[in-house]
Amino acid sequence: MEIGKLMNSKSLTKNAKLVNRYLRSNLSGSPTELYKAASYLIVNGGKRLRPYLVLKSCEMLKGKSKKAMPAASAVEMIHNFTLVHDDIMDNDEMRHGVPTVHKTFGMPVAILAGDVLFSKAYHIISSEPNLPSKESIKLISKLAKACVNVCEGQLLDIQMAQSKKIPTQSQYIKMIEKKTAALFDVSCSMGAICAQAKSKDVSNLSSFGKNLGIAFQITDDLIGVLGDPKITKKPVGNDLREGKKSLPIVLAINKSKGSKRKIILASFGNPHATKKDIQMAVKEIRSLGIEKIVRKQALGYAGKAKRSLDSYSGAAKNELLSLLNFVVKRSL
Amino acid sequence: MEIGKLMNSKSLTKNAKLVNRYLRSNLSGSPTELYKAASYLIVNGGKRLRPYLVLKSCEMLKGKSKKAMPAASAVEMIHNFTLVHDDIMDNDEMRHGVPTVHKTFGMPVAILAGDVLFSKAYHIISSEPNLPSKESIKLISKLAKACVNVCEGQLLDIQMAQSKKIPTQSQYIKMIEKKTAALFDVSCSMGAICAQAKSKDVSNLSSFGKNLGIAFQITDDLIGVLGDPKITKKPVGNDLREGKKSLPIVLAINKSKGSKRKIILASFGNPHATKKDIQMAVKEIRSLGIEKIVRKQALGYAGKAKRSLDSYSGAAKNELLSLLNFVVKRSL
Repeated sequence: MEIGKLMNSKSLTKNAKLVNRYLRSNLSGSPTELYKAASYLIVNGGKRLRPYLVLKSCEMLKGKSKKAMPAASAVEMIHNFTLVHDDIMDNDEMRHGVPTVHKTFGMPVAILAGDVLFSKAYHIISSEPNLPSKESIKLISKLAKACVNVCEGQLLDIQMAQSKKIPTQSQYIKMIEKKTAALFDVSCSMGAICAQAKSKDVSNLSSFGKNLGIAFQITDDLIGVLGDPKITKKPVGNDLREGKKSLPIVLAINKSKGSKRKIILASFGNPHATKKDIQMAVKEIRSLGIEKIVRKQALGYAGKAKRSLDSYSGAAKNELLSLLNFVVKRSL
Repeated sequence: MEIGKLMNSKSLTKNAKLVNRYLRSNLSGSPTELYKAASYLIVNGGKRLRPYLVLKSCEMLKGKSKKAMPAASAVEMIHNFTLVHDDIMDNDEMRHGVPTVHKTFGMPVAILAGDVLFSKAYHIISSEPNLPSKESIKLISKLAKACVNVCEGQLLDIQMAQSKKIPTQSQYIKMIEKKTAALFDVSCSMGAICAQAKSKDVSNLSSFGKNLGIAFQITDDLIGVLGDPKITKKPVGNDLREGKKSLPIVLAINKSKGSKRKIILASFGNPHATKKDIQMAVKEIRSLGIEKIVRKQALGYAGKAKRSLDSYSGAAKNELLSLLNFVVKRSL
């Protein structure tokens, strides 16, 4: 279901439609196979959260959201570029309920689909005539820095997965800060730049986005291990079976002892674990109170995010806070 | 051997050193594995032709080459990004006489190495304080458009390779115009933009770069099939065995008849062809006068390139023309 409907937010749904229209007109061309592959995931779903952050951040700072539309669409292209390449790296088969781009178009076309999304993102920002060059170049600089961070974060994630060690909590946070939160951060700061806001405002919005992004990923990781399969559309305890070293799993392994620990570790990264094994492990994780601990951490980051917006007011601010609230309170 | 020495050009060697220094300082960071992979091909070779074009184009138009250094380095990063990703797509094992990035670091790290090179390219241009925003945004827009073209060209190349048809000459030219010449084109036009040149000059330099790029690729493809293995460091008739539908091969297939054609086709894309088979096929290609025909075409594009610089003069112009001359006259 669309997040707009889930949140009961007409604003999110309306903005997603505008962004989709803009994306469609910028992702057509020849050779058609390339643009079909590049727009395949976008057509098949996605919540358009990051464009929403760009548009609402701009609106909150009294900017015209029309001016922010290229940046909003660019960040969605970059997000999709990372999804396409990540799916190749992880050899994942499904995304948004459909086969991944490399499974559908083959690996070479999928690499190129990611690359062309990346290129188009920079092209649409740099070709926007409604924004002064000074602002446009700030957008590019921020976006490129965020992309560097996403690459670094993805490499940290790969190294973490390959290592036999269980990461510390701060290593995990550092990784998601780069891999996930960097794009949330840049979405909000780009929105502020499109409103030609002062650097203090850009930095407030950057902080809002970063902390929202961390809270989002922590909650996502909680759902990845304790989420209801009916909602996640993935098997119960999916991240546990896949051996993902996410915060809830790291905490569960570190906090458990004796037979509980054995039960959890028996399913961790074990493709041969039975459904019953996983259910038992998930039960142990629940009994350790991991949900409460992780929720508290997510709320901590959400609190920081909220405080970054203390000096603002208005409808767009409330919409940003509703999104923040939804992100951390999503049910499992 | 360095192209600087081959051309006996001190200027090329000197500029390559400056570019290397700039690249080194912008391709270090953490996680170290990512930056080792990203700079691996750069460290192991490359001629720095594209940065040279940026710097000399800027110089010819009375710009300070210091201002063009970020653009010069960025285009080299983009070039290397395409090499890293192309090698994955083609599953090539060797490049510049060393194992390719994905063979050395694994495919996931190689994809990321390409992605971070791409991101850094945009970051260094957008962070350059010595250029007005107006020029910087022009550079980004041109570079992003060139990257879109490179992706489209690479897809055309893949489709051409997969198709059973032999492409027409104009399909081949269209493909290399996007895949190869787009980066030569943007190198020269970026140099002009860094000199804050008029749009007429930018367009002249763009035309110089584009035609130089086509002439370069045509000659490269000639070497790929008729080149001396001692110079190419590849087996005799390498592109023929690989079934590459390059201009000399397309012309040879189209021009040959009867038994000659059979001999050429027997080796074309045939991994089981013996050295003797290939040598026979190469002999037939020579006897068709393919070298002369292809050289003439390359000279035609070189002539167009040269005429684009008719209204300029000075040392940098002569250096650009020397490079152009070297590119089309390289011995096989």
